[in-house]
Amino acid sequence: PARDEILVDAETFPTDGYIAESAARMTGCRIRAVPAAEIGAACGPRTAVALVNHVDYRTGRLHDLPGTTAAAHAAGALVVWDLCHSAGALPVGLDAHGVDLAVGCTYKYLNGGPGSPAFLYVRRDLQPRFDSPLPGWNSHADPFGMAPSYAPADGAVRGRVGTPDILSMLALEAALEVWDGVAVEDVRAKSLALTDFFLECVAAYVPRGRVECVTPAAHAERGSQVALRCEDAEEVMRELIARGVVGDFRRPDVLRFGFTPLYVGYADAERAARVLADVLAERHPGGGPPGAGGTGG
Amino acid sequence: PARDEILVDAETFPTDGYIAESAARMTGCRIRAVPAAEIGAACGPRTAVALVNHVDYRTGRLHDLPGTTAAAHAAGALVVWDLCHSAGALPVGLDAHGVDLAVGCTYKYLNGGPGSPAFLYVRRDLQPRFDSPLPGWNSHADPFGMAPSYAPADGAVRGRVGTPDILSMLALEAALEVWDGVAVEDVRAKSLALTDFFLECVAAYVPRGRVECVTPAAHAERGSQVALRCEDAEEVMRELIARGVVGDFRRPDVLRFGFTPLYVGYADAERAARVLADVLAERHPGGGPPGAGGTGG
Repeated sequence: PARDEILVDAETFPTDGYIAESAARMTGCRIRAVPAAEIGAACGPRTAVALVNHVDYRTGRLHDLPGTTAAAHAAGALVVWDLCHSAGALPVGLDAHGVDLAVGCTYKYLNGGPGSPAFLYVRRDLQPRFDSPLPGWNSHADPFGMAPSYAPADGAVRGRVGTPDILSMLALEAALEVWDGVAVEDVRAKSLALTDFFLECVAAYVPRGRVECVTPAAHAERGSQVALRCEDAEEVMRELIARGVVGDFRRPDVLRFGFTPLYVGYADAERAARVLADVLAERHPGGGPPGAGGTGG
Repeated sequence: PARDEILVDAETFPTDGYIAESAARMTGCRIRAVPAAEIGAACGPRTAVALVNHVDYRTGRLHDLPGTTAAAHAAGALVVWDLCHSAGALPVGLDAHGVDLAVGCTYKYLNGGPGSPAFLYVRRDLQPRFDSPLPGWNSHADPFGMAPSYAPADGAVRGRVGTPDILSMLALEAALEVWDGVAVEDVRAKSLALTDFFLECVAAYVPRGRVECVTPAAHAERGSQVALRCEDAEEVMRELIARGVVGDFRRPDVLRFGFTPLYVGYADAERAARVLADVLAERHPGGGPPGAGGTGG
């Protein structure tokens, strides 16, 4: 049968899902949502492509990129990885693992600032077949030829659209300069040390039972964030931000703390846990003794 | 019969044509290219939509927006106007003329700088039916709800996609502040006076026969640019730019001069014509006496 199925990570970042739905509608495919860990096994003879988030934006769980990619390929499917929460935080190995396609943003661990440019990866041998639904003068083989018909450029240029946002590109260029001479393996080591240390501090400072860690303890399953389930998480995050500890609230009950190893240090991690404990103590004084119990999940 | 035809202005800006082709391919429509002046008459029972550039990017000809829109509507078609070369330069009257859809950039007459944000216009009564092929969290009815399914916001917000380029938006905001208290009718009056004056200066300074104006002389058919056909136009423009007169070369033989009335003055127009005459005289000394003959077209 024709490949008319798009598999989507069931916990996908919503925008990914919206775009996948739109692509499915325009191409006559149908969407099937599957838990990320089961995507590889779910790929079948009708699967055209699977869309998976390398790190779950809510829980911070790191998914198995090599295994899922290999399983999809064995079924004849392509995989698109969303790297928003892993690019700049940990080694990904797109080439090494034969990944087909990847997308991501530069405003999280690549420090490009709000609304900075996105990126696209297309495996080298797929590039001649890459067919953009958004062709533009800037992806044309002869951009200033102003030819009436479209002829895509070779290589990476084919993924461009129109005039890029020059100011954002300049800011991103400066942001990426801090990576000169930095190995992503070293960044990953510090990231894991930071998130381990933060979890230790939370266990030491926060009364038992007030928060539950939903980010996996195993290093191989952890991105560069820590997500804590917490009662009244929205109000708690508001109070943290007011005290200079800037994380995210994710509905319904998650406090999300991202650790960007190039500029977040151990003192920041310790302070974040201490301020969290203070906020929780002020909201419900005497809520129980400190202890590691709450953070083991 | 079903409406499966997309009419495209035959001289359309290439990127518009590429996107129209892509949209046609994805929706099963076919493209038909028609001269802009004939688009209204060419709309028929199979025409879904017509795409027209309000001002031809090459010649500077201003097309008949009210008449074309009315003719398209009489045939049951919708019209999309590309306003890149008219927004900020002349009154457009989208609401007054019942225009369905319009798009444009802010980096020409709106002074937003290179790669500044684009804009979209959707007629108020069509907004509830507006169905974006690029749905994003920022066009969702509840952006921070992170809902797995897409529900479009009402009104203009529905046209958004993802996180906007914040730096470019800030620059655009500053660029638009100069419009506070400025009537576009006054800008249009100065634009026409500037382009008239530039043409007079060209006629006075440039030897007869060295350039031919391809922008219409009639005010009702002129945008805010002057396009001069010229031998060796690419080299001539290079020399103009080297002397601080920054226009565009458009293949095969057009010099394009844009007049942004909010900051271009009569002295700039005079100097541009004088430098053009100098450049042409140096390239071919004694090329004939000055005269209006060359600029009347």
